[in-house]
Amino acid sequence: MAEPAWPEAARYRVIFGDCDPMRIMYYANYFRVFEIGRAEWFRRLGHPFKVYIDQGLYLGVIEARCRYRRPARYDDDLAIHVGMVTLGRARLEIGYEIRGPSADLLVSGSTAHAIMDDAGRPRRIPEDFRAMVRATMAPAG
Amino acid sequence: MAEPAWPEAARYRVIFGDCDPMRIMYYANYFRVFEIGRAEWFRRLGHPFKVYIDQGLYLGVIEARCRYRRPARYDDDLAIHVGMVTLGRARLEIGYEIRGPSADLLVSGSTAHAIMDDAGRPRRIPEDFRAMVRATMAPAG
Amino acid sequence: MAEPAWPEAARYRVIFGDCDPMRIMYYANYFRVFEIGRAEWFRRLGHPFKVYIDQGLYLGVIEARCRYRRPARYDDDLAIHVGMVTLGRARLEIGYEIRGPSADLLVSGSTAHAIMDDAGRPRRIPEDFRAMVRATMAPAG
Amino acid sequence: MAEPAWPEAARYRVIFGDCDPMRIMYYANYFRVFEIGRAEWFRRLGHPFKVYIDQGLYLGVIEARCRYRRPARYDDDLAIHVGMVTLGRARLEIGYEIRGPSADLLVSGSTAHAIMDDAGRPRRIPEDFRAMVRATMAPAG
Repeated sequence: MAEPAWPEAARYRVIFGDCDPMRIMYYANYFRVFEIGRAEWFRRLGHPFKVYIDQGLYLGVIEARCRYRRPARYDDDLAIHVGMVTLGRARLEIGYEIRGPSADLLVSGSTAHAIMDDAGRPRRIPEDFRAMVRATMAPAG
Repeated sequence: MAEPAWPEAARYRVIFGDCDPMRIMYYANYFRVFEIGRAEWFRRLGHPFKVYIDQGLYLGVIEARCRYRRPARYDDDLAIHVGMVTLGRARLEIGYEIRGPSADLLVSGSTAHAIMDDAGRPRRIPEDFRAMVRATMAPAG
Repeated sequence: MAEPAWPEAARYRVIFGDCDPMRIMYYANYFRVFEIGRAEWFRRLGHPFKVYIDQGLYLGVIEARCRYRRPARYDDDLAIHVGMVTLGRARLEIGYEIRGPSADLLVSGSTAHAIMDDAGRPRRIPEDFRAMVRATMAPAG
Repeated sequence: MAEPAWPEAARYRVIFGDCDPMRIMYYANYFRVFEIGRAEWFRRLGHPFKVYIDQGLYLGVIEARCRYRRPARYDDDLAIHVGMVTLGRARLEIGYEIRGPSADLLVSGSTAHAIMDDAGRPRRIPEDFRAMVRATMAPAG
């Protein structure tokens, strides 16, 4: 089994309301789990989104993808692994892996974002945010 | 079978994402269906919520109730019946009945509301809104 | 400020996807939070729902109520307090209090349940489940 | 403005519960709208999913993508355009375009599916289903 590409950022326990008649997590709900992961990941990096939102800056979503390999089921305690994939001038892409109770890879995905103001207008990525993100992408050695 | 208490305001078709592992609509999702019903009901009365929201007035929820009698299932085409229950100075209560494919009563419920501004502060119910609501409560004869 | 009626069963951090254009948690989503609370509460009591579900027994919802006092907002770390309200032969009622970052009461609510089988037919409450629930209702002194 | 790639399959009116604190539709909720679109599209083709589900066959999701161009907002009446992108032996891919009140393209996306049984095991795409799908992909002239 392949190692996770990124560290665990958060955990999430699947509820009844997440699942569908196939008795697996409904496909759209993994994107909620991605949000939990990226929020906790940024919090751990010392940059909780709330600080930016209070300044009127939002992390708008430009693109989202998910590849479903194995289903998450009711009551599964999911591990959400999160990391930065690319960082451009105006766009950043975040990657996700969701792993199940036996650490097996259930889904992988990504979201691409732009910084936007309150009115949805694009804004430059703030310098401190950029520096923080870049640090997570630095080669370890 | 008892007659609906109020006219049909809207219809909603149950999707996979609404249902849970019991293969019935998840209990929280009926409150989304209530919202569809009250939005369409106000629209038909000539007072779409959007007009108020554009003025910075929101219909905040103070209380919500639902009684589940029979389950809605995947692909059911639901009829949403909506009516005004009580209208006070600062509070109004809306009632709902959701009926299934054979017009049988599936759930009934209510939501109590106050008018709030953008910042969540209570506001008086606007006079035109109040007049419109009162008209729906007038005895027929 | 009144003391919580029941111990804390779980915590939940509000995400963007939970909130609405008023920038507060959408009213239907508190019922998801109630589910998180009751699932964790039963788990702590040593009776995770999954054990019953694997036997084909479900906790069907008969009624649900919520009273919204103060709004939960994005990124709030909510405390979910859960306790048993009534226990009948075929019906049980669970109570909830959700408290915000300063331990202030945001919403209170309840859900009434019946035990159902896979096909939605009512079943007697299993004796071990009943004994466990009754124990939580015993007077402390 | 580019023409829609596929005909309109369904419409959906954005509710408060779909939107987030940016006052636009939350990114995960477009995947619910995709489901509404594909369900209505298959219904119009004379093959409602319910017929297959009643036989124990489900349209499992393998992959999902969405590109967000312009936001959908509260009360927008969305047009959901749906069409088949690829049809393989065991996999089919469906495309979506969601258009807003002025027919402008808001989001585009796709979902890839496999036919699965009740237990999540892959199954061959039924022949009548395949024939129906192939017909929608036939060149017009």
